[in-house]
Amino acid sequence: MVKRNDNFRKLSSRYLFPEINLRKQQFLTKHPDAKLISLGIGDTTEPIAASIALALTDASKSLGTIQGYSGYGPEQGLAELRQKIAEKIYHNRVKAEEIYISDGAKCDIGRLQALFGPQVTIAVQDPAYPVYVDGSVLHGLTKINYLPCTPENHFFPDLRQAPRTDLIYFCSPNNPTGAVATREQLEALVAFAKANHSVIIFDSAYASYIQDKNLPKSIFEIPGAKEVALETGSFSKLAGFTGIRLGWTVVSEALTYEDGSSIKADWHRLVSTIFNGASNIAQKGGIAVLEDKGLEEIAYLQHYYLENAKIVKEGLSALNCEIYAGDNVPYLWVRFKGKKSWDIFQEFLERAHIVTTPGSGFGSTGEGFIRISAFGHRENILEAKRRITQLRLNI
Amino acid sequence: MVKRNDNFRKLSSRYLFPEINLRKQQFLTKHPDAKLISLGIGDTTEPIAASIALALTDASKSLGTIQGYSGYGPEQGLAELRQKIAEKIYHNRVKAEEIYISDGAKCDIGRLQALFGPQVTIAVQDPAYPVYVDGSVLHGLTKINYLPCTPENHFFPDLRQAPRTDLIYFCSPNNPTGAVATREQLEALVAFAKANHSVIIFDSAYASYIQDKNLPKSIFEIPGAKEVALETGSFSKLAGFTGIRLGWTVVSEALTYEDGSSIKADWHRLVSTIFNGASNIAQKGGIAVLEDKGLEEIAYLQHYYLENAKIVKEGLSALNCEIYAGDNVPYLWVRFKGKKSWDIFQEFLERAHIVTTPGSGFGSTGEGFIRISAFGHRENILEAKRRITQLRLNI
Repeated sequence: MVKRNDNFRKLSSRYLFPEINLRKQQFLTKHPDAKLISLGIGDTTEPIAASIALALTDASKSLGTIQGYSGYGPEQGLAELRQKIAEKIYHNRVKAEEIYISDGAKCDIGRLQALFGPQVTIAVQDPAYPVYVDGSVLHGLTKINYLPCTPENHFFPDLRQAPRTDLIYFCSPNNPTGAVATREQLEALVAFAKANHSVIIFDSAYASYIQDKNLPKSIFEIPGAKEVALETGSFSKLAGFTGIRLGWTVVSEALTYEDGSSIKADWHRLVSTIFNGASNIAQKGGIAVLEDKGLEEIAYLQHYYLENAKIVKEGLSALNCEIYAGDNVPYLWVRFKGKKSWDIFQEFLERAHIVTTPGSGFGSTGEGFIRISAFGHRENILEAKRRITQLRLNI
Repeated sequence: MVKRNDNFRKLSSRYLFPEINLRKQQFLTKHPDAKLISLGIGDTTEPIAASIALALTDASKSLGTIQGYSGYGPEQGLAELRQKIAEKIYHNRVKAEEIYISDGAKCDIGRLQALFGPQVTIAVQDPAYPVYVDGSVLHGLTKINYLPCTPENHFFPDLRQAPRTDLIYFCSPNNPTGAVATREQLEALVAFAKANHSVIIFDSAYASYIQDKNLPKSIFEIPGAKEVALETGSFSKLAGFTGIRLGWTVVSEALTYEDGSSIKADWHRLVSTIFNGASNIAQKGGIAVLEDKGLEEIAYLQHYYLENAKIVKEGLSALNCEIYAGDNVPYLWVRFKGKKSWDIFQEFLERAHIVTTPGSGFGSTGEGFIRISAFGHRENILEAKRRITQLRLNI
C-alpha cells in the first residue's frame, strides 16, 4: 500500500482558520439566532471599486468574442501587468521581467517551499502567518527557528540571538502583530542575511496600508536587497481580490545559489512546470487596479478599512488590554495579559458574538493575544465597537 | 549560501513547450513575414460560448456591488460547482464533497506530487504529458517507471511486464497518443492497482471529447475504482478555459494509505494550507458550463474541434506517415517511421510554416512521432491542410 507522507503526520492536526470556523459553527448550532460579526480571518468585505469591476466585466465579455478570446497566457503573467507592477508598486526598483504573476501570495509561498526543497533551514517571526511553517513542514522541512516578536522588542527579532538559516521569512507590515519594520530595521535584516548568506522571503501583502511615508513598503527599498531577498505581494488586501485570486513574486536576476546559479531560472522553470498562470480575467482586473483611477479608488477603500480599525480600537480602550497595530494595517493585535488566546477568543465569541483570531494560532509567542480584523461593513464595525465597549470579560 | 535544490539539477534542461516557443521565435526572427499556424501546444482558440461568457460577465459585474461581492471562498471550491460536477460530469458516481475545485489540472498534479511526498515510486505511460515526470522530479521523486505505449500494443501498457509502483499516472484519452482506454483495459488497470496496492492518478482532461458511447469517460465508471484511484479534470479543453483557469480533483473517501488513514483528509489539509481556491469568477463560469445551455454550447465547440482534426487528417493522408488519434480527441498523433521527432518538427516549421509538438518531448517512446493539435480557427485549419498536402518532406 502507499505509505502516508510523513510530513503530514508532523503537521499540527488542524489549520488555524478551519478550526476557527469549526468553533463558529458549533456556536451557531447552539445559538442559531446569534448575529455573529466576523472579525477573524482577514477577509475583505467591500465591493470591487468601479473602474476595476468594469475592467473585469470587459475582460469577461471580451472572452466571448473572436478578437478578445485568449487561451493559455505566459505562465509568468501578462507583460502589461508585470510592467505596471514594476512601475506603480516598485517605482522601477525592479524590472518587469523579475516579476512573476500568481494566483496569490499564499499559493506562491507554497511553491517557493517546493523551490528551495526540504533540506534548507528556515527562520520565521513568532508569531507568524501559519503558511510559512505549515507549508514548510508539508514540504519536508524540519529545521525551523522561531524569532520571537513581542511588544518588549518592538516586534522586531533580536538578530544578535538569531541563528544562521538558509531562508528567513519576514512579513512587514507584520501579520498578525501589525508592526511595520523601519528602514533601519530592514537594513539590519539585509545586512544579517548578507553576512549569513541567507535568502529573505519578504511578504508584503499589507504594504499598501502603510500610511507613514518614512516606512518602507518593500524590501527592495533597501540597497543590496536584490541579492538576498525575494518578495511576494498580493492584490487581495490591496484591492479586495481575496476571491478573485491575484498576486506576484519578485525574484531578482541578482539572487543566486551557493554555486552562483540563478534562483530566478529555477523559479521560472518551476512556475512553467507546475503552474499555468493566473486567470486572464483577474490579470486584466489587476492592470485596472494600477491605473490612476484604480489607485485612487483603492486608496479610498484602504482608508475605509483603516478607519474601521480606529473605531474598533476605541471600543477596545474600554477593556483591560494592550492594543497594538491598526495604524498601518487593517487589524488590531490585542494582548490580555495572563490570559489564554483561545479563552479570549471564546469570550468574544460567546459574550459579544464576535469572531476573532486567537494569537496562539500564529505561534507560541502569540499566546495571550487575539487579532481583530477591521475588514467589515461600517455598520457592523460600529456594532462591534458597541458590543466590545459593553463586554465584561469573564476570564 | 543557500544550496540549490538538487531536484532542479535532475530536471532536463528545458521544458518542452518553452523549447518549442524558442524555436518558433528563432524561425520568426529569420522569417518575419512567415504566416505561422500554431498547432503545437494544445491551446483553445474559439470564443467562450455565449451563456458562459455572460455568466463570467455577470459574476464580474456583481463583484462591484455590495450584495454580489465575495471574498475568500472555501479552498475546496463553491458548493454549487462541486454539486454540478458530481451530477453532470460524474452522474453522481462521486459525491460533491469528494470534488475539490482548482485552478487547473496541471496545478493540481503539482500539488498531488507534494501530497504523496518524495519517497513514493511512480509509473507513467510513455509517451506522457511532461508534468507527471518533471513535476515529480521537482518534488524529489527519483523512482520513475516508464510504461511504453505504442501502436504495437494499441497504446495500452503491458501490465504483465509493469513493476509495482506506489502511484500510476494514467491519462485517457491519452495526451499525446489520443488512445482512449476501453472499459476492459481500465478494469485491468484497476485490478492491477488493487493487486499492487497502488494509487492511480487518472487524468481525464480530454474526456468530454470521447464520442464513442462505449468508452468510459472516467475511471469511476469502473467498479471499485474509488478505492484505488483519484481523478483530475479540467475546464480547459472542456469549455475553452485554458486562460480562465479552472479544474478539479476527485478524491474519494474510500481512498486510504497503508495505515488506513484517509488520503482525502491530507488532500483537504494540503489545499487549505498552500492553495486558496480558484477565482470566484472562473467558478461562476464553471457553473454556467454545466447548465443545460452551457453543455449544449460546449458540445458544439467540441464537435468543431473534432471536425478540425478530421480536416488535418485528410491533409496528412497525402504524406508517408501513420496517423493515430483524432476521433475522440482534438489532436493527431502521427508517426514518420525512421525519422526523428525534432527533425519532423523542424520540417513542418520551415517548409509548411506549421508549429507542431515533437513526440520525443513526451518521452523516448514518442520518438518518430509528432502531435498536431486541431485547436484553431477553421480557416487556419483549412490552410494547414492545404500546406500539409503540398508538403514534400526533405528528411
